Amino acid sequence: VTVPIWIALLHHPVLNREGRVVTTAVTNLDLHDIARAARTFGATGYFAVTPIARQRELIDRIVEHWVHGHGAERVPERAEAMRLLATVATLEEAIAAVSERAGAPPWTVATCARPGRATVSFSEVRRRLGDGRPLVLLLGTGWGLADTALAAAEDVLEPISAPGSGYNHLSVRSAAAILLDRLLVPSRGES
Amino acid sequence: VTVPIWIALLHHPVLNREGRVVTTAVTNLDLHDIARAARTFGATGYFAVTPIARQRELIDRIVEHWVHGHGAERVPERAEAMRLLATVATLEEAIAAVSERAGAPPWTVATCARPGRATVSFSEVRRRLGDGRPLVLLLGTGWGLADTALAAAEDVLEPISAPGSGYNHLSVRSAAAILLDRLLVPSRGES
Repeated sequence: VTVPIWIALLHHPVLNREGRVVTTAVTNLDLHDIARAARTFGATGYFAVTPIARQRELIDRIVEHWVHGHGAERVPERAEAMRLLATVATLEEAIAAVSERAGAPPWTVATCARPGRATVSFSEVRRRLGDGRPLVLLLGTGWGLADTALAAAEDVLEPISAPGSGYNHLSVRSAAAILLDRLLVPSRGES
Repeated sequence: VTVPIWIALLHHPVLNREGRVVTTAVTNLDLHDIARAARTFGATGYFAVTPIARQRELIDRIVEHWVHGHGAERVPERAEAMRLLATVATLEEAIAAVSERAGAPPWTVATCARPGRATVSFSEVRRRLGDGRPLVLLLGTGWGLADTALAAAEDVLEPISAPGSGYNHLSVRSAAAILLDRLLVPSRGES
């Protein structure tokens, strides 16, 4: 089952620990872990978004290794995941690529661990996925998406929270896995 | 809310790509990501299990850095997560530590991505958590827990699966995050 959902992992504009807008460096395991989760849950694609051309070249080389190079020979199942990954310079490019592929402009939903920004819940996103409109889920590296990235999205998804925890510092890799599970597995362990 | 649940991440006995039983090296982001997920979802503790003393020393130094050293000054919230992490040489040591801390021998539930091994479902584990018996969730690095580790556990949890995907190659970091979310967040985005 391939649902029309894309992940966009932004390396800019995101916040650093002090709350300043920065461009982060690529983390190799962000590429692998989120590609594997995307493949597991049937997402259509995964964009690594960075304005730095050398970082995009690095990612492209990593993808090439795992999809067509020695990595693919050694670990064939990794190729299935890594082929979902593509690089773009900006969110706008990702949206344009999805629009062309899906034939309709996607619904953009940003994720944010900070409280008070949400405009949609998990259940609402699940309901609207049924409409068939393509969805692009925006995730931020570093300390999360900057305000301009949140504002550029049509909606902001409620944070992943656990009752009484008060701790909102999951890695972006863990957050991506949980988001895809919550949005794309209807029963999620209800059996 | 702290539920009596522990994670045990085994570096032995686990499988390599060829299905042989091996001892894996520690991956730094396994420590961080799973500690952060454990803290987010209110788990009581997280054991990194490896028979290699030098690897345990390495992990202890990493924990020290983030809980009491410069890491704690720079990123205080990381200390909250990393202080859940402790090293042991064997699963038996982890079980003994939990028994002493919780005052009762824990229920051991192994995780396995391969089909056909499961003896309990997510919903059954959730139900039985209500009994208050401490639970130790076993996760394997590499290509997953070896048969002897599965056999050493009282039960084997159903795989994390997505409808129609047929792909069971999540990273252990992603699997741990999803497991904790499925087991410890009753509503999981039902709002």
